[in-house]
Amino acid sequence: MAITLRAMSDALGGQLHASAQVGMAAVIQGIAPLATAQRGEISFLSHIKYASQLQQTQASCVILLESAREYLPQHAACIVSPQPYLYFARLTQWWRAQTSTPVPPGIHPSAVIHPEATVHPQASIGPLCTLGARASIGAHTRLVARVSVGDGCILGARCIVHPGVVIGADGFGFAPREDKSWEKIEQLGAVRIGDDVEIGANTCIDRGALDDTVIEDGVKLDNLVQIGHNVRIGKHSALAGNAGVAGSATIGAYCTVGGGAVILGHLTIADHVHISASSTVTRSISEPGLHTGIFPIDKNDDWEKNAVTLRQLSKLRDRIRELEKRLPASS
Amino acid sequence: MAITLRAMSDALGGQLHASAQVGMAAVIQGIAPLATAQRGEISFLSHIKYASQLQQTQASCVILLESAREYLPQHAACIVSPQPYLYFARLTQWWRAQTSTPVPPGIHPSAVIHPEATVHPQASIGPLCTLGARASIGAHTRLVARVSVGDGCILGARCIVHPGVVIGADGFGFAPREDKSWEKIEQLGAVRIGDDVEIGANTCIDRGALDDTVIEDGVKLDNLVQIGHNVRIGKHSALAGNAGVAGSATIGAYCTVGGGAVILGHLTIADHVHISASSTVTRSISEPGLHTGIFPIDKNDDWEKNAVTLRQLSKLRDRIRELEKRLPASS
Amino acid sequence: MAITLRAMSDALGGQLHASAQVGMAAVIQGIAPLATAQRGEISFLSHIKYASQLQQTQASCVILLESAREYLPQHAACIVSPQPYLYFARLTQWWRAQTSTPVPPGIHPSAVIHPEATVHPQASIGPLCTLGARASIGAHTRLVARVSVGDGCILGARCIVHPGVVIGADGFGFAPREDKSWEKIEQLGAVRIGDDVEIGANTCIDRGALDDTVIEDGVKLDNLVQIGHNVRIGKHSALAGNAGVAGSATIGAYCTVGGGAVILGHLTIADHVHISASSTVTRSISEPGLHTGIFPIDKNDDWEKNAVTLRQLSKLRDRIRELEKRLPASS
Repeated sequence: MAITLRAMSDALGGQLHASAQVGMAAVIQGIAPLATAQRGEISFLSHIKYASQLQQTQASCVILLESAREYLPQHAACIVSPQPYLYFARLTQWWRAQTSTPVPPGIHPSAVIHPEATVHPQASIGPLCTLGARASIGAHTRLVARVSVGDGCILGARCIVHPGVVIGADGFGFAPREDKSWEKIEQLGAVRIGDDVEIGANTCIDRGALDDTVIEDGVKLDNLVQIGHNVRIGKHSALAGNAGVAGSATIGAYCTVGGGAVILGHLTIADHVHISASSTVTRSISEPGLHTGIFPIDKNDDWEKNAVTLRQLSKLRDRIRELEKRLPASS
Repeated sequence: MAITLRAMSDALGGQLHASAQVGMAAVIQGIAPLATAQRGEISFLSHIKYASQLQQTQASCVILLESAREYLPQHAACIVSPQPYLYFARLTQWWRAQTSTPVPPGIHPSAVIHPEATVHPQASIGPLCTLGARASIGAHTRLVARVSVGDGCILGARCIVHPGVVIGADGFGFAPREDKSWEKIEQLGAVRIGDDVEIGANTCIDRGALDDTVIEDGVKLDNLVQIGHNVRIGKHSALAGNAGVAGSATIGAYCTVGGGAVILGHLTIADHVHISASSTVTRSISEPGLHTGIFPIDKNDDWEKNAVTLRQLSKLRDRIRELEKRLPASS
Repeated sequence: MAITLRAMSDALGGQLHASAQVGMAAVIQGIAPLATAQRGEISFLSHIKYASQLQQTQASCVILLESAREYLPQHAACIVSPQPYLYFARLTQWWRAQTSTPVPPGIHPSAVIHPEATVHPQASIGPLCTLGARASIGAHTRLVARVSVGDGCILGARCIVHPGVVIGADGFGFAPREDKSWEKIEQLGAVRIGDDVEIGANTCIDRGALDDTVIEDGVKLDNLVQIGHNVRIGKHSALAGNAGVAGSATIGAYCTVGGGAVILGHLTIADHVHISASSTVTRSISEPGLHTGIFPIDKNDDWEKNAVTLRQLSKLRDRIRELEKRLPASS
């Protein structure tokens, strides 16, 4: 089938401006980044600050802000949108719908489903998944492949769960015995996941010890993320790859957590808090905004000198104090 | 079935003290944290320092220390134990035994078992597991689902292995060739795991290069933990989520390693060492106790100022020395 | 079958020097590290600096440099090689070929293969793998077990992919909507993996958003590594366990990345760059060599004092400046 610029803007809106070389009936072959787009492809400019990149593009059409139009090469058509990046996201969805067969609902015969599990008829359970007793999968939710959902764990509607995900393994709970070996605390809670949640490959969400672990609507988890027992993540928060959230931490809504970041247990993170990649959150955060704790990387020799000195930092402070005492304030 | 306080204390011990409102025959509906427990539920107070939380609880019964009894609201019954948290752990186990059907031993028909693997008749191999040649699974050990155990790897008795775990993949061993490409070192060792070990979802334990990788009795590994080849972890040590132990490191007994911590290769960690979350162990540790290395998190602007200065730290030290030289010691 | 020293050196080269006690026809039972090798075993000495370890060894034969021969105990035979560690690597491969049946090519009946996937007749697809539409697996490549390869993703020849690996899950791409919820960006690219790549257990390589994610020939990825969408990793680079590379980062050839390290998105790392374990790369690196950023670990009390002071570091610098102003330079 031919995807024309006109069909695109009819479906997605925006103001389509044809060029002398690219008419509204022009057929678009693909979507590509500005730098590598070829003739016959559509691209996008997300921010006006990147407008200089327009000059070199070979794209036949660019999605952009009205204010960016003046930088567009003459050969190219454009679609003007107040939010080009959001328009691009919707274009990728429309594009996929035009070019691929949707995954049909149903349960793959290789999946192992407990007879007491509940799967909505519009859900899709891919190959080699396992669902435990009383697990429940909502409408239009898709477990891609090799996903395990434990007993009593619930997923809402329109979730996407990538391969290798484990929902509802036991939380890490043990009480020390007299001899310092460990007594298991049975994890009697479950996991409750809202609607429109996406969970990346090999991510783990543990069941609660007594109450449930809760992932609210619209949360996005990247790959290899660890969510401990009784964690609660507020709606529309997003956690990047390798991040870890320890038990009973509460993350607010609209937060972002960078890759490899660690949030310790029992902390509370307010709404709209952003944690930089690799940072470790050791206390609750009530102030919205970006929070960071990363050791700056350096050439190894330079790092070594600074790291050695860092071990003496509190002594250096004492030496500065001493110098200040001995040198009276200038007046 | 009805679970009464009397049945509970008959099974688990402790001194049960009924109250005017809650008799020994009172039926308990569930276990809950102090803060959210409702009438008909049992809770616990682990430390006397949290005794003030007792005042507000709606729990019908609380497991507590003798010294905490005076803070208990009149309406509530209690069970006195010298170790309330350990009592609670055992209660969760007894509770599960009363309310759930135990997982029966046997091999799920979807599991792929090498004909030369050995599975104890009292072990449970869940759906979609794979066992390699000469793999051996001990009595009452449970592979929950989607667990892979490689050739020659051995698990003892009463282990619990959560979904997605990989035991006995090849260790990461390569020798550089003349042209700086890599020659694979075949990993000829295996993995030996003791009794009462629990392994969290998607955790990986690599086989040894020549000797075996060894996990001793009672070790607990959380989710997404990486154990390199020829690592040895001493009995009853516990490693939290996303932790990584590089090849040939030896961790003693009764250690704990926090989430996201990294232990470099070929190091030796003594017994009873505790590593804080996110810390990186770059040298052997012989002294028991808590060891930490975390960059403190801060508002991003404050972090940036301090991080920039950190790159000049050894120069700052030199400037302090210079000042000290120029300002003779006060006497 | 009997493996003799003569058979070994016939197959692998090097100069074999028998001893009075160990002749060329001596049978070797196993390979072991110098420290634990017993009579009848072969070992290796990788560097002359470890030559003192030779004195105590019980090994019947040691692979070593010519210059190390003088330290060898009289009882032992030796094989002289200019690169003993590389010789040892090749020995492990030859040893495995002598002692094990090779994994036969073919597709395990429990694997779920899309009818439009392509598997080379000399490839081996292990149990419980899934291959999507137009996935392609090259000659002599082995998916060990429970590996998922998504639609359109391509692996070259002679790759080894360990259990739990996910290739071609969706990259983590979302555009913010007006209400700060997330609009999914369909991931329309795929993953292209070259020849001789090894991928560790539970590692994830995401498909590209528009272009492909690319892993070049000879790359080695350890366990639990996260590779974001549109990342490119140059030939013969090696990434250790729990490392994470965020979207659109480019890593050069012949790089190494230590365990738990994080490389932020859209950065460029030159060829021959080495990143220490646990370090976070926050800017592009053009200079080859070792780069590090780790907070030094310490006893917790000492760490706490230094960490508190670190939060005031830029103020300490200001106080040093002030002192310098007040104390004129000595001349």
